[in-house]
Amino acid sequence: MLSGGPFYTSGVKKGPFLAPDVAVVGAGPVGLAIAWRCASRGLRVVVHDPAPGSGASYVAAGMLAPVAEAYFGEHELTGLLTASAARWPAFAAELTEATGADLGYRTEGTLLVGLTADDLAEARRLWAFQQGLGLPVTPLRPSELRDREPALAPRVRGGALAGTDHQVDPRRLVPALRTAAERAGATLTATAVARLSEVDARVTVVAAGCGAASLTGLPVRPVKGQVLRLRAPGGAAPGFRHVIRGYADGEHVYLVPRADGEVVVGATVEERTDTTVTAGAVLRLLRAAVDLLPELAEYDLVEAVAGLRPGTPDNAPILGPLPGRPAVLAATGHHRHGIVLTPVTADLIADLITTGVADPLLAPFTPDRFTTEEGHPWN
Amino acid sequence: MLSGGPFYTSGVKKGPFLAPDVAVVGAGPVGLAIAWRCASRGLRVVVHDPAPGSGASYVAAGMLAPVAEAYFGEHELTGLLTASAARWPAFAAELTEATGADLGYRTEGTLLVGLTADDLAEARRLWAFQQGLGLPVTPLRPSELRDREPALAPRVRGGALAGTDHQVDPRRLVPALRTAAERAGATLTATAVARLSEVDARVTVVAAGCGAASLTGLPVRPVKGQVLRLRAPGGAAPGFRHVIRGYADGEHVYLVPRADGEVVVGATVEERTDTTVTAGAVLRLLRAAVDLLPELAEYDLVEAVAGLRPGTPDNAPILGPLPGRPAVLAATGHHRHGIVLTPVTADLIADLITTGVADPLLAPFTPDRFTTEEGHPWN
Repeated sequence: MLSGGPFYTSGVKKGPFLAPDVAVVGAGPVGLAIAWRCASRGLRVVVHDPAPGSGASYVAAGMLAPVAEAYFGEHELTGLLTASAARWPAFAAELTEATGADLGYRTEGTLLVGLTADDLAEARRLWAFQQGLGLPVTPLRPSELRDREPALAPRVRGGALAGTDHQVDPRRLVPALRTAAERAGATLTATAVARLSEVDARVTVVAAGCGAASLTGLPVRPVKGQVLRLRAPGGAAPGFRHVIRGYADGEHVYLVPRADGEVVVGATVEERTDTTVTAGAVLRLLRAAVDLLPELAEYDLVEAVAGLRPGTPDNAPILGPLPGRPAVLAATGHHRHGIVLTPVTADLIADLITTGVADPLLAPFTPDRFTTEEGHPWN
Repeated sequence: MLSGGPFYTSGVKKGPFLAPDVAVVGAGPVGLAIAWRCASRGLRVVVHDPAPGSGASYVAAGMLAPVAEAYFGEHELTGLLTASAARWPAFAAELTEATGADLGYRTEGTLLVGLTADDLAEARRLWAFQQGLGLPVTPLRPSELRDREPALAPRVRGGALAGTDHQVDPRRLVPALRTAAERAGATLTATAVARLSEVDARVTVVAAGCGAASLTGLPVRPVKGQVLRLRAPGGAAPGFRHVIRGYADGEHVYLVPRADGEVVVGATVEERTDTTVTAGAVLRLLRAAVDLLPELAEYDLVEAVAGLRPGTPDNAPILGPLPGRPAVLAATGHHRHGIVLTPVTADLIADLITTGVADPLLAPFTPDRFTTEEGHPWN
């Protein structure tokens, strides 16, 4: 299925100009990281995007949470999340070294909490599953929970620590990746790509998020997420340091504190294609957030925004060559996991392009898993 | 106290240009309506404001609600509210005739509702007081309430009708008043007035909202209000026609439907001078709104904004000449009532300027009511 040799050795001139080795469609974190990795290996790279960083990453909270995101029936995805999260410390360090940028990368870990007894029962069922996978989820006594985050509501019934679930700020990540890619020699162009035939390159990487559907026919669908951004009053840092993920009266919410005072509160998961902010979603997010951490009521509400995640039928990304089209690679469908999966996606796709050999990690995620007996219904 | 003759008969030239008869400081609805009325009577009027309509009126919902706003211990204010509301139909008609503008003036009336038994008990106490003043508050049976607004939550316990409490859209009102004033001959200038000595006119009207405090020393203080604007999905009109004012689990909220699909949800009343939007206020407003009218959860949340009302020690406006300064008239301190009080304020101030005679309606609201035995502490 995967092509038998490195693409980059087969360079030929096309027309008066040298065609790039790699064209990346989409300048979100995935596309930019692929461009950075490829350009660092000496490939000529062009990235096409009329509005870099304006897609799902603009809305994303930036949780690097393979443990908290490990879910029933998603074993292979969990493996990829874990592999990518393990690459994040070195990836962040390398990116900061290449650009000098502060990525807002924080390693305090994530607290998983349940507000009511029912919430805690639901949470514990998931924690047991995660522990069964060998993932580091450590139940905490209420006193331990409050020692870690005294600002939690007294009525929070219990919690656990996912110490290896870190965070990064996507709005810092994207400009840093762009700088790194450009410094490594990649070129960004504001061209909007409507058809892949418009792209002149030896390898084309489709990292266009939801836009991949119309470009490739892959089964990528928008999954709406509404997210709030609060800010601690008076320019202070938030009164908590861990990412907090909780169930609050059946509502699932996360609270992501940034050093600069921002707190991201998210997120709805809606099978809708619009990006309107609705009163009901804002109400549910704020109610759950304030129930878990009452001091948030005093925070400024500075933004309410909706984005569209690139979802797939099995919630896992689509990584690798299109069937029958070895020079067109998909790197999309990252759904809720685009930020955490950025390093592993960039490494595996760049490896595939430069060596022609697919890492075994890719195998469960290639586009041909959606091929039916009738052929490629999505082509 | 009030000057003994019409100001406008004493015109003299000042410098090379004729000084205006009237300078109005502040181009909110009150200032613009005064300018319109004065210019229509042949006076030369200049209005000073670097940002017309950007003050409290930009945030205001535009309820014309002398009945619902009638409150214990505010008898004289209630009289002025009632007098001004009675002028609104003719005022709106005249303004629309002068400008062709649609003001969003609606006369369906206001429903007063209580969500819980406790809420209803609290509301009934106020309705009894309002009825005791002879104001038209008509208790409704639950079936009558639902006949009028089927979208109300089934658990709303009871309500009443204040049929004469209407509404107007302040964001339509202000541009219309500006047009009317300019067509009548008034001039707007973007000059910011920091001291009244900068203003060259025979009569100066301070209609600067909270800004009146620093210009005059009057005891006007900012009272913060946070307000949301929702929009019915798909460009539809809201699913209700009355203004709804309710108590919902102890929270007081109003819901103002506009024909264009907008719904204004307000408002907090906070002794604060900032204009930040806080998570807790948005949560409380949305919770109360959705509890009363569940379909609002599906509406778009299009704006959350805070404004500063010009509050006074007795919650009533300050109208008339400053003590010892008969050529400086205050028209400020309208607090929650600036829109409803616009017609009566404009008429009474214009009458005073043109005739020198104060209408008896003004007597309870003149600036000298804050004078102490020690003199004018606010001068």
